[in-house]
Amino acid sequence: MGHPAENREPGTRTENTELVAAILISEGIRLPPEKFRVALVQMSCGPEPEQNLQKALERIADAAGRGAQVVCLPELFQTQYFCQREDHSLFDLAEPIPGPTTEKLSAAARRGGVVLIASLFEKRAPGLYHNTAAIFDADGSLRGLYRKMHIPDDPLYYEKFYFTPGDLGYRALDTSVGRVGTLVCWDQWFPEGARLTALQGANILFYPTAIGWHPAEKAEFGVAQHDAWRTIQRAHAIANGVYVAVVNRVGFETGNVRGKSAPGAGLEFWGASFFCDPFGRVLAEASHDREEILVGEVDLKALEDIRRNWPFLRDRRIDSYVPIASRLID
Amino acid sequence: MGHPAENREPGTRTENTELVAAILISEGIRLPPEKFRVALVQMSCGPEPEQNLQKALERIADAAGRGAQVVCLPELFQTQYFCQREDHSLFDLAEPIPGPTTEKLSAAARRGGVVLIASLFEKRAPGLYHNTAAIFDADGSLRGLYRKMHIPDDPLYYEKFYFTPGDLGYRALDTSVGRVGTLVCWDQWFPEGARLTALQGANILFYPTAIGWHPAEKAEFGVAQHDAWRTIQRAHAIANGVYVAVVNRVGFETGNVRGKSAPGAGLEFWGASFFCDPFGRVLAEASHDREEILVGEVDLKALEDIRRNWPFLRDRRIDSYVPIASRLID
Repeated sequence: MGHPAENREPGTRTENTELVAAILISEGIRLPPEKFRVALVQMSCGPEPEQNLQKALERIADAAGRGAQVVCLPELFQTQYFCQREDHSLFDLAEPIPGPTTEKLSAAARRGGVVLIASLFEKRAPGLYHNTAAIFDADGSLRGLYRKMHIPDDPLYYEKFYFTPGDLGYRALDTSVGRVGTLVCWDQWFPEGARLTALQGANILFYPTAIGWHPAEKAEFGVAQHDAWRTIQRAHAIANGVYVAVVNRVGFETGNVRGKSAPGAGLEFWGASFFCDPFGRVLAEASHDREEILVGEVDLKALEDIRRNWPFLRDRRIDSYVPIASRLID
Repeated sequence: MGHPAENREPGTRTENTELVAAILISEGIRLPPEKFRVALVQMSCGPEPEQNLQKALERIADAAGRGAQVVCLPELFQTQYFCQREDHSLFDLAEPIPGPTTEKLSAAARRGGVVLIASLFEKRAPGLYHNTAAIFDADGSLRGLYRKMHIPDDPLYYEKFYFTPGDLGYRALDTSVGRVGTLVCWDQWFPEGARLTALQGANILFYPTAIGWHPAEKAEFGVAQHDAWRTIQRAHAIANGVYVAVVNRVGFETGNVRGKSAPGAGLEFWGASFFCDPFGRVLAEASHDREEILVGEVDLKALEDIRRNWPFLRDRRIDSYVPIASRLID
């Protein structure tokens, strides 16, 4: 999990890049690529966790076959979104990391030769569970974890019951495609999380997500809700000069896990996974209602070009930001 | 500039609001309104500062006549955007605050009975100048200043030459319409500024602005630039649950001040002033090429309703944000 300086080249280009590359290669150090392809797996989830995992493993292979070097799955892809109710027995779904599921994911990453971001229900100890993203490198090694920092709790999204807020902070991890950041769903509404991940040198932020419409609200608020969600995440790209990849699930769900559904009207997950560049331009975007594998390209030259033209990182007033750690300034 | 508790009612409603109101009124304390109208003066600026000021004073009266309770002028509305070159003699344009211009603005606010946000070139001392927003209450009193914190410096926007970065921090000021925040132009690209102003209880953030296209860039980048600018400011509204009002100038300018223009191709200020609600919905938006007075309504009940449904302020992880005061986390 260290951040070896020799693995930090993206974003610091010099006149003699080729010379530096030659020296590093002669020393056996592989430089991350200037361009790489990412795949966003927008999928639906059924009642059987084993089938959802199997589907995800197949989609990873599909994405690798389409040239992806990074693959991101949606939040908690192994189950329907079970947080639609509070049920103690559902903690049985959680698994330690590493564990049987991460073994399979690791193998899939290695087989496909892809960096893999997978969102898991982590059992850290009896009575202590997290909503965790595991980041595997292309050789299958687990590069690190990110534990969801901001936990929602709203009707049919009872996550505070299940997930202890993360205690690892925000992280950008070194992988074979350079430094990669991930946050999870509700984090997407907090500019601080995006900033703190980008400041660690992430070139791209992934947001595995499970967000949808309440059927009763969709007609009145559906368009505005989706638009606000898209807007604020595009803004993270703009503010930080990073690529952003948002991966949502799709389909109507009642939180059905092995035949047991939650009470309530269910949720219509709105899909619309998207990939945008460091100026917030949406380069690829999925439908609201179909499974898709969305592919986009990260270009570190474009990233640096955008940052040179819009030099926000140059002008941050870091002498003035400490009170942001206040609940309210009253 | 104090923040008396009795002047802080907006956003804290109780079952017995009417009783509280009756008590406060009997004590001679006026409660801010639950709803109020704001006017965004999108104007063009000519070579003569006196004429620009005169036009602004007339627009304030126009806006008041249309029922506005708050009026915001564009950034540095007294002149064409002179920062298109570095010229020591242009410091002559700066004025102390209070000074002759703020006297006229104060009188206009009082006459119109409006809160007024006016962006000025402030002379604080010989050799020490700021890009400053002055906030007048509806009785004409100067409620306080905000000195632009983030100063740009890019081709034809040579602001670091003219303006010392602000040292007052971010501020929300109490006025007759409740607590109001202002930032200035380049600040709009920094989520921290919006957050720190909103955390002080501002219900609305104003962004007096002077942003435009380089003629040579417009065809290729114009749409994306305007869209990024609009997107990130809508995101400030969403992240913080506040209204946002952005007031830009309009028209092609060569930085002509009393007949002396800057070298260079000039700038086409893109107008498109807009007003959005606390969920980022654009409620009113001006053209790219005409002078306009845009009117919008702030509704504190709607603000609280949005915040209850999207409770981001509840879930901020203030234990984790301190490193945001780092330049880079390396």
